[in-house]
Amino acid sequence: MSYPNYKPGLEGVIAAITKISYLDTEKEQIIVRGYDLIELIEKTSYIKVAYLLLYNRLPSDEQAKEFEKSLMAEAEIPDSMYQLFSLMPKTTQAMDALRTGISFLAGYEDPDFLMDTSTKANEAKALKILAKAPTIAVNSYRALKGMPFVRPNRELGYAENFIYMIKGEKPTATEVDTLDKILTAYIEHEMPNSTFAVRVVASTLSDIYGAITSAVASLKGPLHGGANEAAMKMFLEVLSLGGVKIAEKYILEKLARKDKIMGFGHRVYMKKYDPRAYLLKDYIPKLAHLRPEGAELAQIYEIIAKVMEREKGIFPNADYPIALLYYLIHIPIDLYTPIFLCSRIAGLAAHHIEQHENNRLFRPRVIYEGERDLHP
Amino acid sequence: MSYPNYKPGLEGVIAAITKISYLDTEKEQIIVRGYDLIELIEKTSYIKVAYLLLYNRLPSDEQAKEFEKSLMAEAEIPDSMYQLFSLMPKTTQAMDALRTGISFLAGYEDPDFLMDTSTKANEAKALKILAKAPTIAVNSYRALKGMPFVRPNRELGYAENFIYMIKGEKPTATEVDTLDKILTAYIEHEMPNSTFAVRVVASTLSDIYGAITSAVASLKGPLHGGANEAAMKMFLEVLSLGGVKIAEKYILEKLARKDKIMGFGHRVYMKKYDPRAYLLKDYIPKLAHLRPEGAELAQIYEIIAKVMEREKGIFPNADYPIALLYYLIHIPIDLYTPIFLCSRIAGLAAHHIEQHENNRLFRPRVIYEGERDLHP
Repeated sequence: MSYPNYKPGLEGVIAAITKISYLDTEKEQIIVRGYDLIELIEKTSYIKVAYLLLYNRLPSDEQAKEFEKSLMAEAEIPDSMYQLFSLMPKTTQAMDALRTGISFLAGYEDPDFLMDTSTKANEAKALKILAKAPTIAVNSYRALKGMPFVRPNRELGYAENFIYMIKGEKPTATEVDTLDKILTAYIEHEMPNSTFAVRVVASTLSDIYGAITSAVASLKGPLHGGANEAAMKMFLEVLSLGGVKIAEKYILEKLARKDKIMGFGHRVYMKKYDPRAYLLKDYIPKLAHLRPEGAELAQIYEIIAKVMEREKGIFPNADYPIALLYYLIHIPIDLYTPIFLCSRIAGLAAHHIEQHENNRLFRPRVIYEGERDLHP
Repeated sequence: MSYPNYKPGLEGVIAAITKISYLDTEKEQIIVRGYDLIELIEKTSYIKVAYLLLYNRLPSDEQAKEFEKSLMAEAEIPDSMYQLFSLMPKTTQAMDALRTGISFLAGYEDPDFLMDTSTKANEAKALKILAKAPTIAVNSYRALKGMPFVRPNRELGYAENFIYMIKGEKPTATEVDTLDKILTAYIEHEMPNSTFAVRVVASTLSDIYGAITSAVASLKGPLHGGANEAAMKMFLEVLSLGGVKIAEKYILEKLARKDKIMGFGHRVYMKKYDPRAYLLKDYIPKLAHLRPEGAELAQIYEIIAKVMEREKGIFPNADYPIALLYYLIHIPIDLYTPIFLCSRIAGLAAHHIEQHENNRLFRPRVIYEGERDLHP
């Protein structure tokens, strides 16, 4: 049967009224608190946009510096959490380690404060999660790989410390700048699945740690944040099978088999270009020299994008260039989605706060097509 | 502004087509896979209804016995998880400990199997989570309270072992029967917030551990599963303030202050009786002798229900009698919501499986009421 009032996946259904962000598909614009996200990426920083999301105003340079300092002052996690990472079975996936870590972190809050749904309390908790998430993401990954922990260095900036923990050494300015742009590009995107998961969970008046735990679970999915890892694996597969020479044939064969090509298209943008992808693709040729295979990967990137445009009329989304940028600055593939989540915490927290400011429990209904009138 | 097409909390919006369960508000009936849930509670058992939910048929006595055996064979958890519980800060809330435990458990799966969305793989993972959740819930609670662990006893039945772990001694037949009825009453309920959270997260093709982790976060909320703890705290407050003599005045004052009275009403049932509450209330007088204050609590129960019906025209939901039943069989209040979650895993897993059998990513939209055209 078909039901005219039922939209699978709630496609096009309005789930919330928000002042946080909007995908304006007419103007092909991502609006974040009134600003164009692309302009924010070009002219500000992750720290400034995170502040904008949390406190609803763009900070001065001075305020941004203070905010970054308070984040770095909170970046360290208790010793028990490093022990927790060591306890995790080595088969644990990096996103699941991050999920467990954020869930565990809730236990350090006073229970009354944890369940306090006021904006002030939620903001204070959001700041802690935002500050500690990179430490959790990187050090749980390190434990799983048998690598030594690298504790956060509060003398460094937020993005700088993030790569420092990943690499175990001070990063270059190019690496920091690239990561900062990626983090800003990923920071907020209206009502994707993970943001919706936060809203749904928050609406029971549950706590922000739990809501963000749900977002980690959501973002892990291959149809959501997992797409950047899948895109990079595709680039590397093309490279291993013959590189530039076979790239077009590889994609045509995939399309013939009706395989999903990760990193292309987006439900809301439909057939238009993702402005984040449009901006970030220009960084690829500039950074290609950072890897011996960088120049060839940059060519493969162009070939696949052209074939997809010609054959399917669809364009790269943000995951497609970001996957390659991560790779060029030597970030391990397993950390692509955890970093995405860490960036997105600023947006997720803003939605959690807004949900609690004007709450209504999410409780939709169903169409029942099962049996009736059975008796045990 | 008001928007005719926007329903806050998705009230009345169809989120899924399902063969699992339905709240038939006309007939005041909870249908689970074609059966009336009340009839299932009266004539079958938690194990049988869990089997029905997971495998879509009511088992024979023999099949139910085999299923219970396979659950009990999986009830033990790795030693590392007991260490995990000991690491948790003592301020951790019981639901958060359960959330962390289920999230951590995912790491023991082979990563490919973990991400396998086939029905067979999901069923196998569901069985493990269903089997181990009581062990996680009770033993993490024990660690937080500084009590010794009580490992599961696979010689016992599912509900019997559940109370055995809670009490540290073999329970009476009355206790086991009461818990079994509570577990069955809570097992499945169409599309409450936690089930919706599972569907939302599952739709990214994320794994069942993550999806159920989200449900724990959701169910913890005071507007959802947390209501049973709140109801019990209210009973005890009335008792401490004067008991039967002040019960009516207490509720009238609360209503005058527009305080929310937990355990009453339900979005979908509206002003009708929750059939689970209607069935379970008859157990209260039968079990009142199990506590010295049981008889007075049973009277308070009746008084509050009458005042609520008279003043507001609303009736108890399942949380209201269940809170008191838990109390009468000496279950600690902190475990009320974790037990609810353990019961509901059978229903949540059925929804996760059904979502993956016919998936469409949940990705709704928003109405944007924020600013526009700002520039950094």
